[in-house]
Amino acid sequence: MSMATSPHTLLQNRTTHRNPFPLTSQRASFKPASIKCATQVQSQPPPLTTQSQDRVFNFAAGPAILPENVLLRAQSELYNWRGSGMSVMEMSHRGKEFLSIIQKAESDLRSLLQIPPEYSVLFLQGGATTQFAAVPLNLCTPNDAVDYVVTGSWGDKAFKEAQKYCKPKVIWSGKSEKYTKIPSFHDLEQNPESGYLHICANETIHGVEFKDYPVPMNKNGVLVADMSSNFCSKPVDVSKFGVIYAGAQKNVGPSGVTIVIIRKDLVGKAQDVTPVMLDYKIHDENNSLYNTPPCYGIYMCGLVFEDLLEQGGLVEVEKKNKKKAEILYNAIDGSNGFYKSPVEKYVRSLMNVPFTLEKSELEAEFIKEAAKEKMIQLKGHRSVGGMRASIYNAMPLAGVEKLVAFMKDFQTRHA
Amino acid sequence: MSMATSPHTLLQNRTTHRNPFPLTSQRASFKPASIKCATQVQSQPPPLTTQSQDRVFNFAAGPAILPENVLLRAQSELYNWRGSGMSVMEMSHRGKEFLSIIQKAESDLRSLLQIPPEYSVLFLQGGATTQFAAVPLNLCTPNDAVDYVVTGSWGDKAFKEAQKYCKPKVIWSGKSEKYTKIPSFHDLEQNPESGYLHICANETIHGVEFKDYPVPMNKNGVLVADMSSNFCSKPVDVSKFGVIYAGAQKNVGPSGVTIVIIRKDLVGKAQDVTPVMLDYKIHDENNSLYNTPPCYGIYMCGLVFEDLLEQGGLVEVEKKNKKKAEILYNAIDGSNGFYKSPVEKYVRSLMNVPFTLEKSELEAEFIKEAAKEKMIQLKGHRSVGGMRASIYNAMPLAGVEKLVAFMKDFQTRHA
Repeated sequence: MSMATSPHTLLQNRTTHRNPFPLTSQRASFKPASIKCATQVQSQPPPLTTQSQDRVFNFAAGPAILPENVLLRAQSELYNWRGSGMSVMEMSHRGKEFLSIIQKAESDLRSLLQIPPEYSVLFLQGGATTQFAAVPLNLCTPNDAVDYVVTGSWGDKAFKEAQKYCKPKVIWSGKSEKYTKIPSFHDLEQNPESGYLHICANETIHGVEFKDYPVPMNKNGVLVADMSSNFCSKPVDVSKFGVIYAGAQKNVGPSGVTIVIIRKDLVGKAQDVTPVMLDYKIHDENNSLYNTPPCYGIYMCGLVFEDLLEQGGLVEVEKKNKKKAEILYNAIDGSNGFYKSPVEKYVRSLMNVPFTLEKSELEAEFIKEAAKEKMIQLKGHRSVGGMRASIYNAMPLAGVEKLVAFMKDFQTRHA
Repeated sequence: MSMATSPHTLLQNRTTHRNPFPLTSQRASFKPASIKCATQVQSQPPPLTTQSQDRVFNFAAGPAILPENVLLRAQSELYNWRGSGMSVMEMSHRGKEFLSIIQKAESDLRSLLQIPPEYSVLFLQGGATTQFAAVPLNLCTPNDAVDYVVTGSWGDKAFKEAQKYCKPKVIWSGKSEKYTKIPSFHDLEQNPESGYLHICANETIHGVEFKDYPVPMNKNGVLVADMSSNFCSKPVDVSKFGVIYAGAQKNVGPSGVTIVIIRKDLVGKAQDVTPVMLDYKIHDENNSLYNTPPCYGIYMCGLVFEDLLEQGGLVEVEKKNKKKAEILYNAIDGSNGFYKSPVEKYVRSLMNVPFTLEKSELEAEFIKEAAKEKMIQLKGHRSVGGMRASIYNAMPLAGVEKLVAFMKDFQTRHA
């Protein structure tokens, strides 16, 4: 790897045999804030193009790999954030330092996704699973019909939770075909009296991803999408949606932060049984500061948003993601059946790539050998088996190239 | 301050004029894990007795000051946790590394509070405010009566949220006396048909703290306590409680983690409208891993628990907290009325010390001058005014001594 020589090199190679937590190859590679923050950084070190030798390639489905330069920057300012004399973890959520952090995070996210002003951005807790309840609690009455398109396990969980709060109907399910497809939108029999249409934009376990979105034909014209596992992986026309929600722990930060983007006219109609913490109105009125938010997680998301902007925004990010996915799917499809992708080609996820071995008895060996080569978390979800490579934004091209080279070598040895 | 000379000194003084994020006086002062973890540290550097020059004394009510050695340890392993090649923020919550972290955190917390085996420990999200709903949703039916003792704003919020899910009654309120008292337990008219008795063990805003606990006289014998702001500040007999809950961001970690300690026989009775994420049974059955938990926050709590154990446990921690509080209350009481504490002496909080100036027009000046001396966040809550010094576990004695010296000097100059 190339060593940064900028003045921002805070932490240098320091390894001793007696040091149990080696900080080898650390570089504080940070970049200028895209809008002003409490303290501004002026200059810029060379960008990272690969990752340090002591890092593993982590193909976990989430929590997942984070950009190396974001981690190094977080490390450099963990103990004392920009001369404040405090860690971000110690800051009052109502102090000027943290307010500058959350406001910048929101502003950068708005830039990334070009979020229209008539949408609110909320930084919440509880994961997408909490949103499975919050969406029906906020958007409909107990007697309202709502439509769910179920293209995988997460969409199914969302549907089941909604049964507590309204009358959801599954208008299409991919279950009988093991969740390998996305329906043709023309075939969807949407209920015009429905309160909303719900989709999961990318099914993390099954690796099926919407490449376009159905037009909601319901009374409110509301499309709701769980984008947990492809949030900020590509440009999205937010104006097509009533609500977008996403757990941060795939593409944009650590676990413990959930981002909700909601059209403002949908806020303020929560059912009486809605816990105050699930009421969008409360969080909207208080700019996500009704109670103490997950401050450090929001800070980390903010660093990731900065990094994505500095990469050129989501158009550039999508190009990289397409290239990585193409290499991996080509390796699978070009293996003469040694590796197989169960998902229909046109809806294969750019983020989560499940695959199986024709000789399934070799799968454990595959995972074990890959781990020895520092490629970890390749085991498929327990509900589907096989392998799964999650190649989120932060997975370097080098990680995918290394995996593909390993796959070819493994095939040669076991064909 | 004394400089550590142990082999664990990972980060050394490195300041250059061109470095925007100085890492001065950093020391990785960590200590052996109290139970085995994925990787074990064998030796121990000298303990910290004060804090580094570049730190402020942060009197915020929460998020709040964290132990300096915990922050330094977190910093040293942020980028690469103990040779795993990953940050804790990147780890799968189902991988062996994170499982070792959460299991050790629970085990250490059980040691600290001597939690009996018939209690479950849950690591959740959403803050105490989410528990304000979860407690009634899990412990009673919509028609159940429950009793609330309201000794401050947080107890009042808990009561109001419970109105959505059962029939709560305020059996004592300190509101008319501006929340400066705790009632005599003999005077409480508990409803024998009540589902539980709820208290807030320490009111963060008003600085009133239960020094002992009422015996619940209800049908289930259940006392529920919000311990957010005095959790792990002193020994507590957990067996007296049905449920203890606490946001982490005062004494034990960053915001975004909520700890629930619940007697197991109370689990499994959630109302039908309970969001799955508020159902204790789901989290209990899944060891807090039903969905992705706030992994990094749990890791930080684990580091704090280790630190508290290494200090000798909560008996020793309480001694330190009593000493700090004594010094500060003595300064207030010994000021001939220049400073005033509104709270009755016998229930003054060891954690949050609100006080006013006789000459209230000087309060803004007091806060401003203190900030110049690197003592920050001394402004009282907006609902009560005046000043508030939060002196949680992690506030060094030196911080309180410095504050008291400043108070005396300020009085001399303005008497």
